[in-house]
Amino acid sequence: MRYALGIDVGGTKIYSAIIDENGQIVSDIEKNPTPKSFDEIKQLFKSIIKKHEKDVDVIAFSTCGAVNNSNNHILGSTGNIAEGYPDMQFAELSAKPVFVENDANCAAWAEYKIGASKGTKVSVMLTLGTGVGGGIIIKNELLKGQNGAAGEMHFKMYSDKRRKCTCGGWDCFEIYASGKGLKITAEEISKNHDITTYDVIEGVQKGDSLMIEIFNKWQDDITNGIIGLSNIFDPDCVVLSKIQDNANKEIITTPIVVKKAVAGNYSGMIGAALLAFEKGIN
Amino acid sequence: MRYALGIDVGGTKIYSAIIDENGQIVSDIEKNPTPKSFDEIKQLFKSIIKKHEKDVDVIAFSTCGAVNNSNNHILGSTGNIAEGYPDMQFAELSAKPVFVENDANCAAWAEYKIGASKGTKVSVMLTLGTGVGGGIIIKNELLKGQNGAAGEMHFKMYSDKRRKCTCGGWDCFEIYASGKGLKITAEEISKNHDITTYDVIEGVQKGDSLMIEIFNKWQDDITNGIIGLSNIFDPDCVVLSKIQDNANKEIITTPIVVKKAVAGNYSGMIGAALLAFEKGIN
Repeated sequence: MRYALGIDVGGTKIYSAIIDENGQIVSDIEKNPTPKSFDEIKQLFKSIIKKHEKDVDVIAFSTCGAVNNSNNHILGSTGNIAEGYPDMQFAELSAKPVFVENDANCAAWAEYKIGASKGTKVSVMLTLGTGVGGGIIIKNELLKGQNGAAGEMHFKMYSDKRRKCTCGGWDCFEIYASGKGLKITAEEISKNHDITTYDVIEGVQKGDSLMIEIFNKWQDDITNGIIGLSNIFDPDCVVLSKIQDNANKEIITTPIVVKKAVAGNYSGMIGAALLAFEKGIN
Repeated sequence: MRYALGIDVGGTKIYSAIIDENGQIVSDIEKNPTPKSFDEIKQLFKSIIKKHEKDVDVIAFSTCGAVNNSNNHILGSTGNIAEGYPDMQFAELSAKPVFVENDANCAAWAEYKIGASKGTKVSVMLTLGTGVGGGIIIKNELLKGQNGAAGEMHFKMYSDKRRKCTCGGWDCFEIYASGKGLKITAEEISKNHDITTYDVIEGVQKGDSLMIEIFNKWQDDITNGIIGLSNIFDPDCVVLSKIQDNANKEIITTPIVVKKAVAGNYSGMIGAALLAFEKGIN
């Protein structure tokens, strides 16, 4: 049995644990808040790796940001993390092999190997969080594209410049389907700038009609994106992270199999580990 | 050297010719108007095949409509051709092997093997005609999806139900980027219901500012679609059929390599033949 040290790097938290070839977490899970500076992040990586590297065959990073096809550095900027982070020299962090992949790609791979899309030929995974990530698997291979940046969910929902997206473009799927998108939709419909996504979810649970309207609009946007992706990829299934049960109920009215992700919060590091075993070390 | 009888079936014309393994047309090209009924189409296929089947190794159809993964029948309806056409039993038309693929997929393959996207790792081809077709090639393989229907360009350009698409949905890329889309854009901007796409092209050539405005709006819609596809696939290049030079000039302002298709009107039958050699017969 081979082992990986999986490290999932998000904008707010960094998870780490030892993961085996079956995708099982075989150690305690360490959670750290993501430090604010490049140097602190690098120090944290070093300290996590130092503790575990003797016990593993590979260090497997699941990270925000698009990752190149050699799985060793980040392409371009990432938005929600310390400036300079994309310049991280991952290979220099350990004497053991280091493997890096985008977090949504890792989550997609985890679902494909041990979760909702197991056994499928073509699957599309959408991770809905502060932003939106995408991971596409075609015939047992992650779609990476020319440079490694494939799966970015920045296709337009409108063509008349309504919302500026975090990517610098206009009206991308991400700025409608993300948590940030839900907040903007809530502000637009309620005319209340202080409304939060928690207000919306709580309101839906209480049966508040305005909150249900907001929630349904957000769901419609997600559904519209899924319809487009389904027509492009003809996938066996679409996997959504963090979808509410009533959201899922809404979405499956379209003739597409939409499944809820099962690997949970640790899908990033599990997927990174499984990809590293598959691609990163021999 | 192996030979295929390539037959390209469109809504208005049916082209046929003998094509060799290099994608060269080695016979006269026969052009027929597409008959109006299923029986007449079937009779035409039979008469074309009867003339040439002894001289070829495979019959290779490039057809409107999505085609299944076994490359022998059409999935669902096709819109612009005789009712019942999707039920055609292609294999029964000849004693030789018969191979069938969607026309945009065939055009994409022709461009990949002998045209604009030769040597690329990931390419997206858009055929802009009465409708819009899409063909995506990833690492030497056509993206077919679960059922064979991948590459359908029915992702939304707006999410507020402006134009009904031929597919039954709303605001798909096809109903903006197609010739039909250009006509609707022209009608909307000029407030003239009788305006034709020829009026627009002619007006642009004469420098008419209203026609240029219409043309630019249509180009913007195409560009917006290409941006989304490029973010999803991270392709080496996007190939467009039938694009005007000034259109191309407009589109390359986005950071994507957009190339003009080179295989021309016969890319369907050439691509069908080359795919048949690759996949259909051994």
